[in-house]
Amino acid sequence: MERMSFLDAEFLAIEDHLAHMHIAGCNIFEGPAPAYDDVLGAVRSALPNLRRYRQRVKDVPLGLGRPVWVDDPHFNLEYHLRHTALPAPGADSDLRALVGRLMSQPLDRQRPLWELWVVEGLEGGRWALMTKVHHCMVDGVSGADLAYAILETERGAGPAIGVSEDDWRPSADPAGLALVLDAWAGLVGDSLRVARKIPGTLIHPSRFVAGVRRLADGLAMVGRVEGGGGTHDSSIDGSIGPHRRYDWCTVALDDLKAVKDALGGTVNDVVLAAITRGFRELLLSRGELADGLELRSLVPVSMRPRDEHGGAGNRVSALFVRLPVTVEDPAERLAGLRRQMDEMKESEGAEAGDLVTNAGDFAPPFLMRLATQSVLRIMNRGRVRPFDTVTTNVPGPQIPLYSLGREMIEWLPFVPIAQGMRIGVAILSYNGKVTFGVTGDYDTTPDIAVLVHGIEEGLRELQKLAGQAPQGVAPTG
Amino acid sequence: MERMSFLDAEFLAIEDHLAHMHIAGCNIFEGPAPAYDDVLGAVRSALPNLRRYRQRVKDVPLGLGRPVWVDDPHFNLEYHLRHTALPAPGADSDLRALVGRLMSQPLDRQRPLWELWVVEGLEGGRWALMTKVHHCMVDGVSGADLAYAILETERGAGPAIGVSEDDWRPSADPAGLALVLDAWAGLVGDSLRVARKIPGTLIHPSRFVAGVRRLADGLAMVGRVEGGGGTHDSSIDGSIGPHRRYDWCTVALDDLKAVKDALGGTVNDVVLAAITRGFRELLLSRGELADGLELRSLVPVSMRPRDEHGGAGNRVSALFVRLPVTVEDPAERLAGLRRQMDEMKESEGAEAGDLVTNAGDFAPPFLMRLATQSVLRIMNRGRVRPFDTVTTNVPGPQIPLYSLGREMIEWLPFVPIAQGMRIGVAILSYNGKVTFGVTGDYDTTPDIAVLVHGIEEGLRELQKLAGQAPQGVAPTG
Repeated sequence: MERMSFLDAEFLAIEDHLAHMHIAGCNIFEGPAPAYDDVLGAVRSALPNLRRYRQRVKDVPLGLGRPVWVDDPHFNLEYHLRHTALPAPGADSDLRALVGRLMSQPLDRQRPLWELWVVEGLEGGRWALMTKVHHCMVDGVSGADLAYAILETERGAGPAIGVSEDDWRPSADPAGLALVLDAWAGLVGDSLRVARKIPGTLIHPSRFVAGVRRLADGLAMVGRVEGGGGTHDSSIDGSIGPHRRYDWCTVALDDLKAVKDALGGTVNDVVLAAITRGFRELLLSRGELADGLELRSLVPVSMRPRDEHGGAGNRVSALFVRLPVTVEDPAERLAGLRRQMDEMKESEGAEAGDLVTNAGDFAPPFLMRLATQSVLRIMNRGRVRPFDTVTTNVPGPQIPLYSLGREMIEWLPFVPIAQGMRIGVAILSYNGKVTFGVTGDYDTTPDIAVLVHGIEEGLRELQKLAGQAPQGVAPTG
Repeated sequence: MERMSFLDAEFLAIEDHLAHMHIAGCNIFEGPAPAYDDVLGAVRSALPNLRRYRQRVKDVPLGLGRPVWVDDPHFNLEYHLRHTALPAPGADSDLRALVGRLMSQPLDRQRPLWELWVVEGLEGGRWALMTKVHHCMVDGVSGADLAYAILETERGAGPAIGVSEDDWRPSADPAGLALVLDAWAGLVGDSLRVARKIPGTLIHPSRFVAGVRRLADGLAMVGRVEGGGGTHDSSIDGSIGPHRRYDWCTVALDDLKAVKDALGGTVNDVVLAAITRGFRELLLSRGELADGLELRSLVPVSMRPRDEHGGAGNRVSALFVRLPVTVEDPAERLAGLRRQMDEMKESEGAEAGDLVTNAGDFAPPFLMRLATQSVLRIMNRGRVRPFDTVTTNVPGPQIPLYSLGREMIEWLPFVPIAQGMRIGVAILSYNGKVTFGVTGDYDTTPDIAVLVHGIEEGLRELQKLAGQAPQGVAPTG
């Protein structure tokens, strides 16, 4: 029996029918699609290294402590690994609808909190793996992510199909007195840990927990600087429903770098400028681009404190960035963002890393989780929500990855939204491509494509400004 | 503004995360699949006749009365009409998994309570329409069912695609005082209606409500005769989870009739004998076929009271049937069921109709709903659950039906299960075929295929007994 961490228990507790606390992603592979049984075999052979994936959450009686993780005696891999297809010809629009639908469904609390979907029939013979994992599984999963477990760095390394059943047998379900007694011990532990949550104090032993807490602390600090709160007159923020929309576009990392080289700033600045243009287009089309309107985005970034040299590792923190949506001139827009980022680096006494290109010590999915978790935590707890949207910008591997002998050709990132925030943008780089994944609330963001188109346009106008013609990857989605 | 009927409100109230109160069906058509936009057009042009499909449920403040139906100002047809596909080659096993998954998801209470799924990629170029409609919509929908609205009796009658938008505008949402005042009036009405629920009293104005209440009354009566209650030692009944499995098989109606002609009894008796053999096989494979074990099935049937002559219409009522699962000899099994049915007809003073062949005044989907509703109502309210399973046997049209110019080649019926009942069987005849659709609880019925195979075997052995070789339709599924 293992008690859930304080933080994970919190993610479980704040989930309701509107805010889904699952992390997701969509990995698109070249064809042909593998047989379902082959994927089943690959996942089955990865399971022995993924303890949490066969455990479920068990509440402690009378709410006397944090929930515990127990082996699921009814674990059934075929429940979790699902098989579906897009209707012919497998258009991106159908993939968008599918991602949106799958993200709108909560995970079953009575089972291990994950689903993996094999999606066949994408145009051009492609197929996809969609992952859906509850936030509260992060601590136990560590770096050994499910998606990672069946990804390889070499084509044809081949899945360990046909490996005989491992000798996993579910442990007995703890019940009654043992749980209650342990709960009291847990409470004491919790109090100590809460006391240690004072900003600046690093919590051990888990660097994960430390990272997340630092992000929350960082946010609080920046929030004070900015003055927090404030009301807005745009429809970008507001209440949400349980259903989601999803859309994305992909650009070449080299295109972003060429713009940066010609116009100055970081790739991060260029990305933010493109997103700003996207929101500008959305607000324009909704007739809401009032004078002086600014959108504030939370941007989790990698911070390297000045007093730390060498291998102390990256820190994750968060910045508020004001997206200058009313600025019409693309050069001015980029310059404004660059100035803002530079100022923030100055005032925060830290160097905001350029996450798109500088992969840190964290595995990308984990970084995405840190960002996501922190955002959800803040959105769901604070009464004053000091930002309108979120922009998670995460570096991925710049080499091709494979699964079951097929190359992964796109990696679509997903960021959850939460009450008060109707749109979020996740940015992920992978093997020379950068993908912008946009999550929208279903009812209030029917025009999600306008935003995505605006991001593409924003990049095109910057390339034009830099005297560049687009290379490599044509915008898609 | 329209108040929900007493009965419908009850169906809404008893729904929880384990018992889903939606009615479903899967209509399989010959290929090629129509374009999604064509289906969209067909449904859109049917909507003006389906008022409820653009209305949502609104609760009355402080629980002061039954909920009301209000127009959904955010109605979005594309949310409700969904598009998906089976992974290639579109095996029945994948369709089974899809039906099970879709049935496991509750409908969103904030929206009109229905979904229609266009499923492409079934083997042989076939496609399907899956309907999912909440029980509480029945009264308002009347005979004009959504599936019916886009089915035609002639090929190529053609959907009314391209019909211009109807002039539907959502009515204003009632709120506050008006709701509360109306609620009090509603309460008075409810009391009167409850008072009238005494057995034998026919309720007006709705024959639907009358039918359903009669079914409940009928059950109560038979239950008294049977002695009710009792414990069982089989795993057929017991608690359920939120997830479902689905499986089916199809036989030729003529085969059933030939067996009946050779061995006596009704088609209904033959159907029950086949199902009994199915449960026998399931219990055998689970090692639970103890001496003296009997399963009791609720069987909603058409009853024509003796004192009514002529066109008074069918009545729906319910019988308990003891399925003689321990009897090994097929002839003896059939004879036992026949004797039982004959006795019941005698003791109830009514003629239990042979529903497979005698289509009554009700449209088949409606009959299915009546049966389903009654079963759920009884299962979820009674403390003593006097039966182990349910067998709904409903006649469908014996002519081919079409949609968007494609012939419907199979009609798979679905019956919900409820707390205490892990397996249910729905039987539906359509155009010379009879389909047995089996619903099982996901966790406790992993061997649903054993039951389905047993039903097929049960029919085969009866045919052999009758000196018949199978005709027409080979068993599928």
